[in-house]
Amino acid sequence: MTAQGLPMVVPAQDLPARVRIHEVGPRDGLQNEKRAVPTEVKADFIRRLADAGLTTIEATSFVHPKWVPQLADAEKLFPLVADLPVELPVLVPNERGLERALALGARRIAVFASATESFAKANLNRTVDEALGMFDPVVARAKDRKVHVRGYVSMCFGDPWEGAVPIHQVVRVCKALMDMGCDELSLGDTIGVATPGHVLDLLSELNEEGVPTSALGVHFHDTYGQALANTLAALQHGVTTVDASAGGLGGCPYAKSATGNLATEDLVWMLHGLGIDTGVDLDRLTATSVWMAAHLDRPSPSRTVRALSHKE
Amino acid sequence: MTAQGLPMVVPAQDLPARVRIHEVGPRDGLQNEKRAVPTEVKADFIRRLADAGLTTIEATSFVHPKWVPQLADAEKLFPLVADLPVELPVLVPNERGLERALALGARRIAVFASATESFAKANLNRTVDEALGMFDPVVARAKDRKVHVRGYVSMCFGDPWEGAVPIHQVVRVCKALMDMGCDELSLGDTIGVATPGHVLDLLSELNEEGVPTSALGVHFHDTYGQALANTLAALQHGVTTVDASAGGLGGCPYAKSATGNLATEDLVWMLHGLGIDTGVDLDRLTATSVWMAAHLDRPSPSRTVRALSHKE
Repeated sequence: MTAQGLPMVVPAQDLPARVRIHEVGPRDGLQNEKRAVPTEVKADFIRRLADAGLTTIEATSFVHPKWVPQLADAEKLFPLVADLPVELPVLVPNERGLERALALGARRIAVFASATESFAKANLNRTVDEALGMFDPVVARAKDRKVHVRGYVSMCFGDPWEGAVPIHQVVRVCKALMDMGCDELSLGDTIGVATPGHVLDLLSELNEEGVPTSALGVHFHDTYGQALANTLAALQHGVTTVDASAGGLGGCPYAKSATGNLATEDLVWMLHGLGIDTGVDLDRLTATSVWMAAHLDRPSPSRTVRALSHKE
Repeated sequence: MTAQGLPMVVPAQDLPARVRIHEVGPRDGLQNEKRAVPTEVKADFIRRLADAGLTTIEATSFVHPKWVPQLADAEKLFPLVADLPVELPVLVPNERGLERALALGARRIAVFASATESFAKANLNRTVDEALGMFDPVVARAKDRKVHVRGYVSMCFGDPWEGAVPIHQVVRVCKALMDMGCDELSLGDTIGVATPGHVLDLLSELNEEGVPTSALGVHFHDTYGQALANTLAALQHGVTTVDASAGGLGGCPYAKSATGNLATEDLVWMLHGLGIDTGVDLDRLTATSVWMAAHLDRPSPSRTVRALSHKE
């Protein structure tokens, strides 16, 4: 579907040669869907994403079904895709969730912290420190089992209730997660308000406080159209792990507007144009998002998906 | 409408202190509208844009009404806004268009060249060199009258028929326009396929060929979601003139998908977050785009407009 020789490949200076895309579509993308997606369709989605070359696909969440009924089929779904030759991280909120994930053979888990009290309260009904306290034994037990742990940090730039989030507040939560034993962090701009200078400042501040760039992933939302510009800034700083959602699926239920995650296709277009290796086949990925959009009965918000799938 | 203290202002290194936004909504945005927009509404649109702080507003086009019937009211519109204390460039395709514009007192004009033969043929029914030949006396006469001349160059990165566009081909057209006497150029990614390395390469190549960055503006389309990342790269190179369209109005009739111009609001969000002065009041601008969207009876494609105008 991609037009002749487009995007033209023109590398830029001081960018990484390769980026690992942490695909969050099946989990972050589908967890806010009003329409129930059958487990088989989810499994097929993950299989197609792997087939398109994505190597890290966040599969589901072992949160209590009461909180996220969309992902209540985690136990049924995970075994359907566990044979794929890709990393399949899963979200676990607490020790009980971790045990469920471990029982199924999960090798990568993620905990979900917040940089702000308001979102910790809204999302986890806890203070920031209570949430960190809840994750402490989860991370310890996971590390004990040699399971890779990712720590999500939400609201790293702005918060819908608190406005601008001071950088030192984000750094404190990040350091606590690293001290706990997290292998990597994902810095979330949950409401999509960040701009490139803010991104660079947070990354520099984290480096100064001892968190290396190699442990940092970025997770941008496109609510204000800033996600890809912020990603470029992060790449220029040396970040090589970027979260994205196939077709731009998903979004934060507390954020204004429907636009959510950075679309994997828009990201891949930029990375490939810059000559940065991702391992992704953009045409296959786009076809997957078109297929998923048909299941969800609404067009993908990804600009690249729309452009490439538009009939000539 | 903007939330408390957002975007947080965090400057980044080596960026300009101020950016001049060349607002193209009334011309580039409305020229592809199927629905006829009354002249009074257009005038009101321009007045509201000026009131929101935009200082350069491309008002209309003195092209033959047969080609762009949407802008056939140029003679009626221009006098309605000529008193505004802002620059009001107008497009002129040829000497006859120039005379019409001069007769109304226009002080800034723009000619519209193409970097590719296919688009020159489709848009002007001429070869690239025939089009340049047509502009030569227009630019000479405008300069003679001390009128500021902008040269648009379309398809600087990719072309829907020809695919990737070689940089030397773009440079040749740019140099010809500068040699003719253009005061500034606008480098158009008409189908939105560019990525940041390509942008930087073209800018560097133009500098090497004697075209200074101060004479270069960028005109990105968001068809593949790349416009703002490309803008960031251009700013890092030193570009201080950026074209954008209020609410993201418009688009190229030959480009796939409906998304068109970079939305001024998305641009302003990034620039203000970076501490770059634009003179624009984002809330007023957003209100203007919401008002215009109501006239056009469809939502703005600007992410920022959608986010800021979403009911709490």
